[in-house]
Amino acid sequence: MPVDFFDTHQEVLERAVAATAERGYWSPYSESPSPRAYGETAAQDGLAAFQALQGKPFALDQQGAQGQVGGEVSPYGPALGITYPRVPAATLVARAEAALDSWRDAGPRVWVGVALEILQRLNRRSFEIAHAVQHTTGQGFMMAFQAGGPHAQDRGLEAVAYAWQEMARIPGLVDWEKPQGKHDPIRMRKQFTVVPRGVALVIGCSTFPTWNGYPGLFASLATGNSVIVKPHPGAILPLAITVQVARQVLAEAGQDPDVVQLAAHAADDDTAQALALDPAVRLIDFTGSSAHGEWLESNARQAQVYAEKAGVNPVIIDSAADFKSVARNLAFSLTLYSGQMCTAPQNIYVPRDGIQTAEGRLSLDEVAQALAGALGKLSADAAKAVELTGAIQNAATLARIEQARGLGLPVVCDSRSLAHPQFESAVVRTPLLLRAEAGDPSLEREWFGPIAFLVAVDSTAQAIELAQSSVRRHGALSMSAYTSDDGVAQALRRAAERAGVSLSLNLTGPVFVNQTAAFSDFHGTGANPAANAALSDSAYVANRYRVVQTRWHA
Amino acid sequence: MPVDFFDTHQEVLERAVAATAERGYWSPYSESPSPRAYGETAAQDGLAAFQALQGKPFALDQQGAQGQVGGEVSPYGPALGITYPRVPAATLVARAEAALDSWRDAGPRVWVGVALEILQRLNRRSFEIAHAVQHTTGQGFMMAFQAGGPHAQDRGLEAVAYAWQEMARIPGLVDWEKPQGKHDPIRMRKQFTVVPRGVALVIGCSTFPTWNGYPGLFASLATGNSVIVKPHPGAILPLAITVQVARQVLAEAGQDPDVVQLAAHAADDDTAQALALDPAVRLIDFTGSSAHGEWLESNARQAQVYAEKAGVNPVIIDSAADFKSVARNLAFSLTLYSGQMCTAPQNIYVPRDGIQTAEGRLSLDEVAQALAGALGKLSADAAKAVELTGAIQNAATLARIEQARGLGLPVVCDSRSLAHPQFESAVVRTPLLLRAEAGDPSLEREWFGPIAFLVAVDSTAQAIELAQSSVRRHGALSMSAYTSDDGVAQALRRAAERAGVSLSLNLTGPVFVNQTAAFSDFHGTGANPAANAALSDSAYVANRYRVVQTRWHA
Repeated sequence: MPVDFFDTHQEVLERAVAATAERGYWSPYSESPSPRAYGETAAQDGLAAFQALQGKPFALDQQGAQGQVGGEVSPYGPALGITYPRVPAATLVARAEAALDSWRDAGPRVWVGVALEILQRLNRRSFEIAHAVQHTTGQGFMMAFQAGGPHAQDRGLEAVAYAWQEMARIPGLVDWEKPQGKHDPIRMRKQFTVVPRGVALVIGCSTFPTWNGYPGLFASLATGNSVIVKPHPGAILPLAITVQVARQVLAEAGQDPDVVQLAAHAADDDTAQALALDPAVRLIDFTGSSAHGEWLESNARQAQVYAEKAGVNPVIIDSAADFKSVARNLAFSLTLYSGQMCTAPQNIYVPRDGIQTAEGRLSLDEVAQALAGALGKLSADAAKAVELTGAIQNAATLARIEQARGLGLPVVCDSRSLAHPQFESAVVRTPLLLRAEAGDPSLEREWFGPIAFLVAVDSTAQAIELAQSSVRRHGALSMSAYTSDDGVAQALRRAAERAGVSLSLNLTGPVFVNQTAAFSDFHGTGANPAANAALSDSAYVANRYRVVQTRWHA
Repeated sequence: MPVDFFDTHQEVLERAVAATAERGYWSPYSESPSPRAYGETAAQDGLAAFQALQGKPFALDQQGAQGQVGGEVSPYGPALGITYPRVPAATLVARAEAALDSWRDAGPRVWVGVALEILQRLNRRSFEIAHAVQHTTGQGFMMAFQAGGPHAQDRGLEAVAYAWQEMARIPGLVDWEKPQGKHDPIRMRKQFTVVPRGVALVIGCSTFPTWNGYPGLFASLATGNSVIVKPHPGAILPLAITVQVARQVLAEAGQDPDVVQLAAHAADDDTAQALALDPAVRLIDFTGSSAHGEWLESNARQAQVYAEKAGVNPVIIDSAADFKSVARNLAFSLTLYSGQMCTAPQNIYVPRDGIQTAEGRLSLDEVAQALAGALGKLSADAAKAVELTGAIQNAATLARIEQARGLGLPVVCDSRSLAHPQFESAVVRTPLLLRAEAGDPSLEREWFGPIAFLVAVDSTAQAIELAQSSVRRHGALSMSAYTSDDGVAQALRRAAERAGVSLSLNLTGPVFVNQTAAFSDFHGTGANPAANAALSDSAYVANRYRVVQTRWHA
């Protein structure tokens, strides 16, 4: 008899549901890669497991494959040499539809139980996944472990918690009794059934394959849909491991493993389009460029599309108690994973006449120098710095740095190459910080990667206006501001709420604007062009299923 | 100081939230137009109020009007002679945007309190609204009272309850404390703010202006959006009264009355398109034809569109204990408001070799005769029948009856004209029931009005297959079936769940497939082409607002 995974995980589920309402700190998955949390041999076992995967076909027993595909090359140098079953889009959809037939009948308890068990097992493989994330995305190991492992699992669990909370409100069998005055009441019996939308598609990105992939995967799975996971051709492995775990759990639960399938494909073929346009595909979760996201929204009209696209994240500096800590915090945010994050700051607005600090007024030049100094300090020790910057994920990002340099804007701090002590062919770069005037056309687009602009503005009021207008037109996934003035703080909050972007105020410690904590911070708002949904909330899950009722006289 | 309407109505709100989860019978608004529920003079006062409205400009103090518009003619004969301020689309949107600025800051308690007070006052004007609905839609008085008054108010309250439930889960100010081992924890404070999408548009229909209009109006209003209500030019009055009440309550609450505006306009002008395509309009609720609904979905891409469109509602007759009661129930459903309901049955599938009943087998001809008999009986007494049929709302529906007659299909029961004892120029028609073979192309579209088809099929299995396929392709808002066989009932339920349509099984008493009860029955599923949303559920409200957070170190 299949295991009841719901029972096993009910406690963590209930705690997760409570956490989404309380929004204080909570996580069931340790973000510390310590032996205490993961076991004495977890680190070495994970590394060995990752090494054992290389240079051979990945063990995934998907039917209907026509050969193998895969050409991942680690941004740290080595080609991974792993191949994956290449299953045609039409076959994947047909198998997903076939698997849906019994999966839909299993019902919310099974859907949620299976999802929770998958997350639990992914957690146990966090080290192996960390190496897989590191060597596909170029993230440093610690970020690959945390963001690719426990934090991604948190976001997956969060989506399951929202899904369960909404579905749990749908009663099964209900008696309906309508009084008729002196006559007998009318008695009806009603059965309410949660039904999935159909086949779901998750389109992964190359920088955060698990963190950005899990919310959609688990939201769709936990609401009864079958899911096709289409990784970016440059970052297949982390999602292949995920799909492998999912299929094992499904099989143990007595379900068809094809409820979750991997759609590995070659770069630049038409697999993504073929899948997205298939009439059976009813849900699409996408993370990537605005062009691709908008194409999906315009063309995949048969599906609900949840899209996270490009944004231009503003920073506003009005005043600060201690600008050193501001510069340190900002420099970290710019350097972290070389700005290859949808939440990394880009346009830093500073009044032309400088800012007030506790130690007196700082001119715009002094602000620039302090930022350049903080950036320099962070990369002074290359061996330490590379753990923070990671490696550049792809050639387009590298070319973008050169393109930015070619703008002819004054350089506040140039991008430098760092030698990686462990991986000599890794391309490691520090941030490029340019100086621009308000209104410069270069500020009107996303420069994904380690590229930022110090923007001279007439006043804080103009900065707020420009930032608000930019968020409305180009979108943003984060907004950060520094001020010691309560009135300015109010104005900033008002602008953020009107533009529809979350605001981080006066971050000077160990919290960074690029980072959000599951169960507390929403990632994205769904209220500006950067994303049409937030991770996670009721709206993110409630339309992935529908309710169909049957009624009859009791 | 403005009144706190939330406090006043908190109890009914909490009861409503509970009712949406329990889904048993509940309503705070009496559906009986009795003096006990509404007061001794309510009936005559309501009639007098309605009569006093006729032949003059409607009292609505909207600014920016350019003259008056309005040419409603009662389907029972008389022109109403009422005019309404004609405000250009751009002015309506500009005023809605201006009103939004303070309304959004009022917050969920005020939004919900105002919505609940509006509903309460609408309830008190139920008789006046009933006459307004009767003399715009052509409904009989009792239906106009119930569906146009308390039942519409129920659906409005239901949407408010869902909105409140979702918004109430968003905490205001939260402390977030992340442990750091031996070190001090990281402490952040976070403020979560519910922000509205923007300007909402409600596009009303000519047959159920309040019942189909209230869910969108109240869902958008209760989530902080400003709302432009655009009635059908043939059924303005019921929504004009609604907007009048809303503006009074807003003013008393110290809010800008322009949070709710009426967009009365002339038939066939471009007001609807201009409003729908305005970039500031972010939410649209629509009830009407598939062509218009699909136009909105394709063109008003800046907005979330909740659309209820056409459908083809199937009935499957497999077997019955007592076919007389089946025929009576079905005849009632076909006759009620002359089938001018999105939930009225259209294609009635019956096996060619007849059906099993407790009194033996009935041939297809006998089934047809029984249905014709029941239809005839219902309209035998014209004075009684007209209360059931109401009047034909518009000429297109009348023409459609002729078009159906012209199909050349055998007539099971012809449509007859009835003389209305009170309104001699009312156009009153009984249902036309035609006989068709499975596969007849006439079955592949909606015949809105008193037009239905008795469809001969090879077997119940074929009937289920045809119904399921029809729902998938053309949509349906209801599905009804009769069977005494548990296996067939299971197959029917399975088909309904897969096609995404609610099923009514063996209705033979005083419950009809065209009717749904708020707080228990979902209206529509959002899972087939007839509607992309259900009235009401979490998905219907959760994306009408977003959450924006601000975080800072505590």
